[in-house]
Amino acid sequence: MSRDPNCIFCKVVSAEVPSAVVYEDQYVLAFLDIGPLAEGHLLVIPRDHFASLTDAPPGAAGRLGSVLPILGRACLQVTGAQGFNVLLNQGRVAGQLVDHAHFHIIPRKEGDQLGYRWNAGKYPSGRAMQLAAEYQKAISTHSAQPGF
Amino acid sequence: MSRDPNCIFCKVVSAEVPSAVVYEDQYVLAFLDIGPLAEGHLLVIPRDHFASLTDAPPGAAGRLGSVLPILGRACLQVTGAQGFNVLLNQGRVAGQLVDHAHFHIIPRKEGDQLGYRWNAGKYPSGRAMQLAAEYQKAISTHSAQPGF
Repeated sequence: MSRDPNCIFCKVVSAEVPSAVVYEDQYVLAFLDIGPLAEGHLLVIPRDHFASLTDAPPGAAGRLGSVLPILGRACLQVTGAQGFNVLLNQGRVAGQLVDHAHFHIIPRKEGDQLGYRWNAGKYPSGRAMQLAAEYQKAISTHSAQPGF
Repeated sequence: MSRDPNCIFCKVVSAEVPSAVVYEDQYVLAFLDIGPLAEGHLLVIPRDHFASLTDAPPGAAGRLGSVLPILGRACLQVTGAQGFNVLLNQGRVAGQLVDHAHFHIIPRKEGDQLGYRWNAGKYPSGRAMQLAAEYQKAISTHSAQPGF
């Protein structure tokens, strides 16, 4: 179990900092965000310390992903919400405030004024395929690295 | 392989509808969103059709989660972004437009005016623990259902 002694979420995992736990298993802990965007707003974290999602190995990220359906169903049932957002922020620029990778589950109701700012663009002809080729190259390079 | 003949993302999976694919394996497909919020905005979907995340079994959701780190790393490298958001919208109220569960990976840069609307509240004394108990009950009920 890797742990950062200065990390607030590691202290939640060790129960050094109290939290309202809703779910736990060997790898994952889910608890109520103390600064909720809506009643029932959850945080879902790995027990192991990974500062960001890109520091997590596939298995750890997979275990986080695997509990999202049951937590989502519970969220709808408990809060009476009609939907929810699952959100992960990586990097300060993206809104990450605690450097221990975490998913938010945010209950959504009509007129709640939450949600992601949506202002969709379009690619000029050919640009998407060019980007896709760059992605494929980057991914094959990462995959070839030992330890992935 | 479950498939909905009327689903646009199922048609992307079958290549009936063309897309700029960046990653694929036996379970997961990732491709560029044709209405990007930022250059390099990705969609990550299961090959199998699940209308929403809560319809997906833990294994399918886990396989989606497991590819997010490598796609996130590739996103930072290809786009030069300083961070990214991972977002899943469940339900119209939450912004879901295509009824085939999907994660967005949205590259983030300073001043891009993207991100989630953040207006955090606080629980009155005792309310968080009460909600946590309701969640625990809902989750244990779901877990006990056959097929989970």
